[in-house]
Amino acid sequence: MVYDILDETTIVPYLLSIDIVQRFFGTNNLKASEIGDGNLNYVYIVRAVDEPEKALIVKQAVPYLRIAGDGYPLSRERMTYEIRSLQIYNELISDNVPDVLYADEAMSIVVMHYLAEHIIMREGMIDAVVYPNFAAHMGEFLAQTLFKTSSLYLKSTAKRQMMGQFVGNSELCALTETFVFTAPYMEHETNEIDPLIETEAKALREDNDFKTAMLALKYRFMNQSDALLHGDLHTGSIMINTEETFVIDSEFAFYGPFGFDIGALIGNLVMSWVSHFERSKDTAYQAWILETVIALYATFETRFLALWKSTEQSALVEKGFIDAEGLNAYQKTFMHNILQESIGFAGAKISRRQLGIAGVADIRGIEEPESRARAEKMALSIGIHLVKNYRSMTSIHDLTDYLKEMK
Amino acid sequence: MVYDILDETTIVPYLLSIDIVQRFFGTNNLKASEIGDGNLNYVYIVRAVDEPEKALIVKQAVPYLRIAGDGYPLSRERMTYEIRSLQIYNELISDNVPDVLYADEAMSIVVMHYLAEHIIMREGMIDAVVYPNFAAHMGEFLAQTLFKTSSLYLKSTAKRQMMGQFVGNSELCALTETFVFTAPYMEHETNEIDPLIETEAKALREDNDFKTAMLALKYRFMNQSDALLHGDLHTGSIMINTEETFVIDSEFAFYGPFGFDIGALIGNLVMSWVSHFERSKDTAYQAWILETVIALYATFETRFLALWKSTEQSALVEKGFIDAEGLNAYQKTFMHNILQESIGFAGAKISRRQLGIAGVADIRGIEEPESRARAEKMALSIGIHLVKNYRSMTSIHDLTDYLKEMK
Repeated sequence: MVYDILDETTIVPYLLSIDIVQRFFGTNNLKASEIGDGNLNYVYIVRAVDEPEKALIVKQAVPYLRIAGDGYPLSRERMTYEIRSLQIYNELISDNVPDVLYADEAMSIVVMHYLAEHIIMREGMIDAVVYPNFAAHMGEFLAQTLFKTSSLYLKSTAKRQMMGQFVGNSELCALTETFVFTAPYMEHETNEIDPLIETEAKALREDNDFKTAMLALKYRFMNQSDALLHGDLHTGSIMINTEETFVIDSEFAFYGPFGFDIGALIGNLVMSWVSHFERSKDTAYQAWILETVIALYATFETRFLALWKSTEQSALVEKGFIDAEGLNAYQKTFMHNILQESIGFAGAKISRRQLGIAGVADIRGIEEPESRARAEKMALSIGIHLVKNYRSMTSIHDLTDYLKEMK
Repeated sequence: MVYDILDETTIVPYLLSIDIVQRFFGTNNLKASEIGDGNLNYVYIVRAVDEPEKALIVKQAVPYLRIAGDGYPLSRERMTYEIRSLQIYNELISDNVPDVLYADEAMSIVVMHYLAEHIIMREGMIDAVVYPNFAAHMGEFLAQTLFKTSSLYLKSTAKRQMMGQFVGNSELCALTETFVFTAPYMEHETNEIDPLIETEAKALREDNDFKTAMLALKYRFMNQSDALLHGDLHTGSIMINTEETFVIDSEFAFYGPFGFDIGALIGNLVMSWVSHFERSKDTAYQAWILETVIALYATFETRFLALWKSTEQSALVEKGFIDAEGLNAYQKTFMHNILQESIGFAGAKISRRQLGIAGVADIRGIEEPESRARAEKMALSIGIHLVKNYRSMTSIHDLTDYLKEMK
């Protein structure tokens, strides 16, 4: 199929031309509505008119940034990487990603089951909703997706082949390189800095200790090809309810450092924790968030190690190369490094959200300016601390203990 | 052109069908002779019968390991990576790679200028020949090729595009993973262990400190995508005379850690140094080798940093992100890491050559068994020391000082 931008009208005949979609609906009487909440892409919900609970999500990438218009070109091939990563995730941990009914790389389209009973996690956390299964689900998701796409599990050729499927996603990697690791800490036209924290922002622009640490993290992001990452795993990329957890929006997928997805999630949990000093002032909810950070990391670590210990042969560790005692020692150092790196990336994610183009609603959405500025300052000081000190952290409790002592 | 294996007869009409080759010779009267010294490929010298000084080298990869026959399949696409890397090297530092007259990825063929007045460096070093320009040439080669294919120089997209050209070279990477980092240190059918050093080999197979350090080096080789590497840069991949230095045989090219090519070269120089305790017993030659290790590394480091300091803008360091003082501090840590990693990889290269399938002629070619075993033991103990202790090295002199104290 030749690429063509669809709209609410043309999308219906397009879908009806796909057997599996037609069988899903069992009728030709469909209605498409643009949801319109995507920054990058067009997203439609398509329903059977006579049975509106029969619904699918259709997402199409356009060759520009949807929110900014066609004056801001952005390669639509980003959808290719979302499709490929979704397919891999579906094989590895299907309970935590939407079912993909149909995908078309040439049309930059993916058709997925509609998640009717779930909301964006960030919105739930703004309302102080507890998600009791989140830590277990996402700890497992991180362990499965990171371990099973790495050279700790795959054969050498299989790992390089999978890497080859994502090495072309350079445009979205470059966005992260600019907007997470660079622009927020220098004079840059895209920054959006609250005038009430300009003093702190200026001090950071002159802080070489922070900048050299940030360069080291950016260097790892660019050159460390540990595993297939989601690449943008914040609480806005998770659809959730108290039972289920789904990861969406993986167009940033690429081979990068283990700690990046973990750090993104932890960083966003920490920002929610900060926001509730100003929003709900619900200390029980904040305590749940810190327990969740610990449980998320503990689940990831336990499951990742369990997968490793049950893998007799991989590209890295050939069967018979090393005995259990030696492997244990190697794993200990290895996991220690993932922990530190995760905390470093969490710090980068927190810092950039206070100064750069894309703030988080948890904090930027606080209406009262002084209150918002207090949250921004607190988050920024946490981010800076983590970026500068992640190499001295030895346990996830070092992070939560540091946070508990902040007040 | 459809792939077809050529021979001494069919190669002439093939070459005459290529305009640039025909113009080079200016005659149809050519004679091809197989050189027959390639382990992997067929290599021919083709001369004009009436002007035999007009000569080209033609190298064709076959879909198996040439030395072992078609029972040992090996993808002929390795030639694709040799061609691509040669073309990049020709752009970056044309004085130190053969001129490529013609290349054909579909035929797995490359046609290069013949280096009539140069020999394989390993053979020269066995005969204790001094190469006064080697350190300057190869230090520059390493600086140019490593710096200018990295994210310290290229834009983000350009670097990922170049990486994409080599990510498919998984078969040859897997050979290195097995034969450099794994098999020599475990029971493995491919090992070739001198019975006179079986005690040392056995002790190493039980040495977990060595094995965990080797896993860390192997992990970096597999997952660190710093720069385009030659991938097999030993003294057998260098054609040399006292004036000129040419790098050949880059079919192992891939994106890997900065220190790997540097370490391969240093490791091979150190093995030559070891061999001359038994071969020439020429202490002046050995002193030249150690001076060359220092000069090679110093040239690399000086030139790499000079290239970096003259680069105002790269994927990693955006113009205006950090001031000179901050960048200096970052560069110091960065270069320190390259030094240590290079010494670690040197240790891996030295160790594997004593135990694994591919020994070096410098040492394995020593005829008297006791003498050969002394050299093997000395080299192995050096390799082990470097693999275990590279993280404590702070200067290239730490390596040469350690060597000088060995006797």
